[in-house]
Amino acid sequence: MKLVVVGAAGRMGRTLINLICQTDGVVLHAAVERPGSPALGRDAGELAGAGTLGVAVTDDPLSAFLHADGVIDFTSPASTVEFAALAAQARIVHIIGTTGCLPEHEDKIDAAARHARVVKSGNMSLGVNLLSVLIKQAAKALGASDWDIEVLEMHHKHKVDAPSGTALLLGQAAADGRGIDLTSHSVRVRDGHTGPREEGSIGFATLRGGSVIGEHTVLFASEGETVTLSHSATDRSLFARGALRAAVWAFGKKPGRYTMLDVLGLNSTP
Amino acid sequence: MKLVVVGAAGRMGRTLINLICQTDGVVLHAAVERPGSPALGRDAGELAGAGTLGVAVTDDPLSAFLHADGVIDFTSPASTVEFAALAAQARIVHIIGTTGCLPEHEDKIDAAARHARVVKSGNMSLGVNLLSVLIKQAAKALGASDWDIEVLEMHHKHKVDAPSGTALLLGQAAADGRGIDLTSHSVRVRDGHTGPREEGSIGFATLRGGSVIGEHTVLFASEGETVTLSHSATDRSLFARGALRAAVWAFGKKPGRYTMLDVLGLNSTP
Amino acid sequence: MKLVVVGAAGRMGRTLINLICQTDGVVLHAAVERPGSPALGRDAGELAGAGTLGVAVTDDPLSAFLHADGVIDFTSPASTVEFAALAAQARIVHIIGTTGCLPEHEDKIDAAARHARVVKSGNMSLGVNLLSVLIKQAAKALGASDWDIEVLEMHHKHKVDAPSGTALLLGQAAADGRGIDLTSHSVRVRDGHTGPREEGSIGFATLRGGSVIGEHTVLFASEGETVTLSHSATDRSLFARGALRAAVWAFGKKPGRYTMLDVLGLNSTP
Amino acid sequence: MKLVVVGAAGRMGRTLINLICQTDGVVLHAAVERPGSPALGRDAGELAGAGTLGVAVTDDPLSAFLHADGVIDFTSPASTVEFAALAAQARIVHIIGTTGCLPEHEDKIDAAARHARVVKSGNMSLGVNLLSVLIKQAAKALGASDWDIEVLEMHHKHKVDAPSGTALLLGQAAADGRGIDLTSHSVRVRDGHTGPREEGSIGFATLRGGSVIGEHTVLFASEGETVTLSHSATDRSLFARGALRAAVWAFGKKPGRYTMLDVLGLNSTP
Repeated sequence: MKLVVVGAAGRMGRTLINLICQTDGVVLHAAVERPGSPALGRDAGELAGAGTLGVAVTDDPLSAFLHADGVIDFTSPASTVEFAALAAQARIVHIIGTTGCLPEHEDKIDAAARHARVVKSGNMSLGVNLLSVLIKQAAKALGASDWDIEVLEMHHKHKVDAPSGTALLLGQAAADGRGIDLTSHSVRVRDGHTGPREEGSIGFATLRGGSVIGEHTVLFASEGETVTLSHSATDRSLFARGALRAAVWAFGKKPGRYTMLDVLGLNSTP
Repeated sequence: MKLVVVGAAGRMGRTLINLICQTDGVVLHAAVERPGSPALGRDAGELAGAGTLGVAVTDDPLSAFLHADGVIDFTSPASTVEFAALAAQARIVHIIGTTGCLPEHEDKIDAAARHARVVKSGNMSLGVNLLSVLIKQAAKALGASDWDIEVLEMHHKHKVDAPSGTALLLGQAAADGRGIDLTSHSVRVRDGHTGPREEGSIGFATLRGGSVIGEHTVLFASEGETVTLSHSATDRSLFARGALRAAVWAFGKKPGRYTMLDVLGLNSTP
Repeated sequence: MKLVVVGAAGRMGRTLINLICQTDGVVLHAAVERPGSPALGRDAGELAGAGTLGVAVTDDPLSAFLHADGVIDFTSPASTVEFAALAAQARIVHIIGTTGCLPEHEDKIDAAARHARVVKSGNMSLGVNLLSVLIKQAAKALGASDWDIEVLEMHHKHKVDAPSGTALLLGQAAADGRGIDLTSHSVRVRDGHTGPREEGSIGFATLRGGSVIGEHTVLFASEGETVTLSHSATDRSLFARGALRAAVWAFGKKPGRYTMLDVLGLNSTP
Repeated sequence: MKLVVVGAAGRMGRTLINLICQTDGVVLHAAVERPGSPALGRDAGELAGAGTLGVAVTDDPLSAFLHADGVIDFTSPASTVEFAALAAQARIVHIIGTTGCLPEHEDKIDAAARHARVVKSGNMSLGVNLLSVLIKQAAKALGASDWDIEVLEMHHKHKVDAPSGTALLLGQAAADGRGIDLTSHSVRVRDGHTGPREEGSIGFATLRGGSVIGEHTVLFASEGETVTLSHSATDRSLFARGALRAAVWAFGKKPGRYTMLDVLGLNSTP
């Protein structure tokens, strides 16, 4: 399977290139960076510390996607939307780990998924996706009148958005379990006089510091007891491995939009 | 529903008596202590700080059970086995929260359950029982070759056995998910030169201190990620509430041995 | 020592009355509630479940303080300021556990402390006060260029302000260790596009749910390692015990404003 | 400063070689492996993925140490004792991160320290060493009659000894704070009927799983409150950085045995 890495010079891009080199059955077909990037023209393998690969970093995604089978994309919402259109045109696999997409971005990704095989997830790890299944069940079993749901996340000091995509993914799982809309039930800020906690709400809290790769905790708190479901990631290659697994899985599937639950076979769990 | 509390002068006994007084539909029928207890003859309600109830603590369980509908029992394995025989004779409900039972005790409780309605659980809380369902699923989804399971518990300094009944209950759920025998896969001691962790084993670790009512954590640790499922109890009345709920549920059921998963309707979850 | 409890019908008030009854060397002199409270005129002991004490709840703090030796006050900023003035007039001990005071309230308490013996703390427990000493040291040893400080707290669903007084107390200890101003370095809200974490800032995050009495965590996160200092309170009487200890300690001291570090003898630690 | 890495082909050895290449003021002088190692004769830099260095791995520590300034050693107790004798003969710096040393090993290291500059520590990170200082203070302030101390650690599934050297280091800090002997107060196994916790004891508990680099927690548990002091390491290079810092620090010091507290300047803290 011939893969393109976009955002090739970034931290996730380099991790992906390394992993592709070490994995049987996939090859690096092209590496894309934004126009003006100092990485343009450099060898993608050397950039990633994976030895010379003979693949020069380019700023032309159109040519890069042309004879590829899939693209892996941990970039930004605006770039992802562009890549989605091109992936649809090339009718290839598009694995999206980008976070922070707004409804307008999601609409365009949906449109692209009529022609591309899109797997989009806020988190590509087996652990987080299993956790989302467990959270949905717990939220269903633990009624809103007695149990309060809170989502806590911690990431490194360089992260620029909050809450994390994974925190929102886990909050969504809780909302799905309760059969409620996440956005209208979210409490994302608490400061000063907040009044008592509103029944049925889902609270979010964010910590930032050091080099933490990703800690997520969902708490179900009741009178005299608390259930806590957590995930800790300590190795960024975890997400790259998940993305690669998704790419291989999606290759040969019919066009459409899929999630990591589909990839991991966790969707059958009620 | 007329309830007997055995071990009436103990911490759980007094909590139960208090709760029975506050709950509609149940009444304290008798209160039993062991022969020689200084509580014998005293009013059970006064003992529990619940006001005078006109029920004197007795050391004669046979008479106590005679016209009762159920007995709630957080005592010791030897006592529980005796009470089980008497409950079977009286064909009433027997709710057992006693921990530390050996196979020989379990056999006698099984025998009693041919005539009594027995609900026995290492933990009567909704949270722990839901957790056991989630742990079973997680253990099934997270294969032994990649994921290591560890069970950690903490209790107050007065607790005399380790690991706790709840830790074993959660370990059993993990073993069930993996389709393995818990006992032969348990590692309950690590000290000195242990060698590397054996694949597929389930480790237990125990902390003791202060007044901690009950903290339980099951970890699933893999390369680069860890999933953690925890329960924290901060109020002993939690278990009393669960026991009372079990008693009311079992009243009218046919004789047999049930678990809190039956009581809580969690058994349908795969 | 003759003590007045203000806010006598509240949760902390009743806990205090109970504790005073059980403690040698102190007696309940008066119990105060706000005008219009349904508790007015009732026996304070009966209200607290501590038996009849012959002390009727009153809405007249002036008379209540007149022949008292001290007042214990876990009320609201506005009430505390009034009680401080009266305590100063009566030249007695005033133990203040009230949280949420603004600079204008603090000024009035300072003024009162010229005549009263005031001990004010966001948290009366030994554990939290020791933790604040350790946090100050850690913040001093772990430089801002490499280590990020975050403060996390969780409380029950009824709490109406955020972050908690204790979280601010611990954040202040960190700021003191760093020699910086807390307010101008605090980040109390993170939502949406926040940009990378600002070096030297102190972040706060808040969780609310269930019946959690008080969990506080201060994290020091760096490249590849994190140091975490936490306190968990599981029994509200902890704070009442601390307040009573403070009252006894302050009795006979000269007028002034003291902290729990003074009471606990932790102020000598550098 | 000319440094020798012993155990050069192991995980820590390779991490050290990489770090030495990236650090100004230090050079890799020699790389030692045990006789029979497949790494013998290979270029140490290539082995470590740091490019060719022109330093072949040798099994002759005597020659390796001859013109060196220091040796960094994360091997095994038996090897460390041999290296200590040679380092003493060469009168160079010997940084020891080896864990599991028995009193007989320690005696030999002490003897070597009459001629070498030895820095030995169960953990080379700033975080853990600061934590040990805080733990000592906390153990001193929180009396044994009211506060129970427990030490919990988690490491990856390959670790062969328990408790970890760091857990023992932190337990020692707690024992020092209490002014007690660690060994005779340690409880390292809890299984079956243990009886209630013994006052003044220090409990240890061990978790193993996945790729966890090192999690350590010391709990101080009392009636109604718990203070928890923790350290989490997520990057093995942390320990290599600490060892290198120790080597540079010890260069030029007079012979003797030092700890990381000396290196980090934390020994002045009372």
